[in-house]
Amino acid sequence: MTSPAYSRRVNRAQQLVGEAGLAGLVVGSGSQLRYLTGLTLSSHERLTALVVPAEGEPVLVVPATDAAGLDDHYVVTWRDGDNPYRLCAKFTGEGTVALGTALTADHVLRLQTHFRETVLAQDVLAQLFMVKDDAEIAALRQAGEAIDRVHARVPELLKPGRTEADVAADLRRLILQDHAAVDFVIVGSGPNGANPHHDYSSRVLEPGDPVVVDIGGTLVSGYRSDCTRTYQVKGVRDPEFLRAYETLVAAQASAVASVRPGVTAGEIDAAARELIERAGYGNYFSHRTGHGIGLDTHEAPYIIGGSDQVINKGMAFSVEPGIYVPGKWGMRVEDIVVVTGDGCERLNNQPRDLQ
Amino acid sequence: MTSPAYSRRVNRAQQLVGEAGLAGLVVGSGSQLRYLTGLTLSSHERLTALVVPAEGEPVLVVPATDAAGLDDHYVVTWRDGDNPYRLCAKFTGEGTVALGTALTADHVLRLQTHFRETVLAQDVLAQLFMVKDDAEIAALRQAGEAIDRVHARVPELLKPGRTEADVAADLRRLILQDHAAVDFVIVGSGPNGANPHHDYSSRVLEPGDPVVVDIGGTLVSGYRSDCTRTYQVKGVRDPEFLRAYETLVAAQASAVASVRPGVTAGEIDAAARELIERAGYGNYFSHRTGHGIGLDTHEAPYIIGGSDQVINKGMAFSVEPGIYVPGKWGMRVEDIVVVTGDGCERLNNQPRDLQ
Repeated sequence: MTSPAYSRRVNRAQQLVGEAGLAGLVVGSGSQLRYLTGLTLSSHERLTALVVPAEGEPVLVVPATDAAGLDDHYVVTWRDGDNPYRLCAKFTGEGTVALGTALTADHVLRLQTHFRETVLAQDVLAQLFMVKDDAEIAALRQAGEAIDRVHARVPELLKPGRTEADVAADLRRLILQDHAAVDFVIVGSGPNGANPHHDYSSRVLEPGDPVVVDIGGTLVSGYRSDCTRTYQVKGVRDPEFLRAYETLVAAQASAVASVRPGVTAGEIDAAARELIERAGYGNYFSHRTGHGIGLDTHEAPYIIGGSDQVINKGMAFSVEPGIYVPGKWGMRVEDIVVVTGDGCERLNNQPRDLQ
Repeated sequence: MTSPAYSRRVNRAQQLVGEAGLAGLVVGSGSQLRYLTGLTLSSHERLTALVVPAEGEPVLVVPATDAAGLDDHYVVTWRDGDNPYRLCAKFTGEGTVALGTALTADHVLRLQTHFRETVLAQDVLAQLFMVKDDAEIAALRQAGEAIDRVHARVPELLKPGRTEADVAADLRRLILQDHAAVDFVIVGSGPNGANPHHDYSSRVLEPGDPVVVDIGGTLVSGYRSDCTRTYQVKGVRDPEFLRAYETLVAAQASAVASVRPGVTAGEIDAAARELIERAGYGNYFSHRTGHGIGLDTHEAPYIIGGSDQVINKGMAFSVEPGIYVPGKWGMRVEDIVVVTGDGCERLNNQPRDLQ
């Protein structure tokens, strides 16, 4: 919080806490804490929490055992036997506080005994936790370019006779060329593509197999990449698959085209789903259209049917419809987009044609 | 849950849920889910939860995207756009439910809208989540023996001129000989020993340095080890340090001797703290005396001042008083103990004399 970037974010948090009529914000762990302070601390069974009251100085409540090396001027330590939950309430008062997503039940239930009401910070402070600033958008753009470079290499890896695991091993190596960590590698060939959360197996690629490749990693900056393309191993093409694939690409394009400030997440989902339903594959598009991305791979906003979450400039999320026919094949196309003043920018730009 | 061991645990959970007058138990993630089902699934932003109602069949609520490969007969899937929280309440009714520790705030707050009241499972179902069965005790005994073998090698590693990081690298290698993973390695030499959560640094060991070595790992079984010994690099011995060390060993022995069914966690903490306070080091024993251990390194019960948590047969926890004089040195001695019918068994048995 000593760096100006973090001070700005915490000040903004305080302003939004005030505007929302909250007594304060308590963020205990994970990416929301990192976003506000730059710290990668985490609450374990002992509470660590940034407390931002509507008025007065923000403080970082930290177990004395973990305080070494932290900037003293906003750290308040507590010792085993103290009540850190009461300590949080001392700074905010006992009104309504917004809680960070990653606080676990042990902390949530104990915090609740000290406040009139608790609400979810990601819901009531959406402007803070969903809208990316310029530095974040630049980092996400970098992440998009990094994973695009990996996708550019995929066609040469998909040779008949290789296993999904062989391909996945190559992908891990390629991801690590520009990322600090691999987050996930999905290589779903043939019928395995019909399981959206398949990772990879010892299945051998056969000529003509469709292959879903969904990969993501974390840059040194902490920001994440996530991109899916569907490929086909050289061989005879199944006309039904091709027809469905055309629908899918059109549905993804339609959803991306619908993204602009003021639209709801539900409307973006509908833009993709409508085309897929009309083509008769509605039952085979079994998941939401997308998820926010930043310091977490999955975060709010979620692009989900019926959601009235309003989309604003600076939000970044995936647009990733899929069609999954059990026992036969699956397909998915995914790009990260960031909302601009009048539309959106795609952060992934590898070809979407079947390769 | 298909294996008899897990069925037994879930049946026991249901019995205790009924006895506690609860409508049900909702365990969403992590070690508590693994304990009850053997599954290493985890709730992410989509809820995965074992729901054990007071009456009727337990079910595993799983996102459709993650259901592949799970045993159908107790799995209930939900799709994006469904409300998995309402689904949980359908099985338990709307009374009071106990929540697993690792459920995050997004899930907790949404679950709460469907139940009259929520309480913490680790508190109200202590018999279930704190008391180890024979298989667990055997696994913890194995873990104790594995980490003892590493401690047996420490004296030969602590040579003047080596850095803490050199020693830590050796310890990682030794831990991995009998563990599936290294959980943490603390090598705190000289003044670094005064920070209880120091890990290791480039500090060079000097003759006569006290060195706190606290190490732990995870066995293939999932059960954890955690053991601390304090060593001294060959050299002149500081009489004040030696006097404090004698107090510490006596305090640890006194706390271990106090462990038996019916005692409170607070009384065990007091047994260690009293001797340290009497010797004038009370302010330098800055943390609780211990923590439960099992599939997590830190879990309930916590051995903490003032706690009225009653200790029962089968509970397993650390007894680890320490004395930390800032800028000078630190010391800690830690064993895992498991409560027997009339006392306890130490699962760590390396010498506690200063080596």
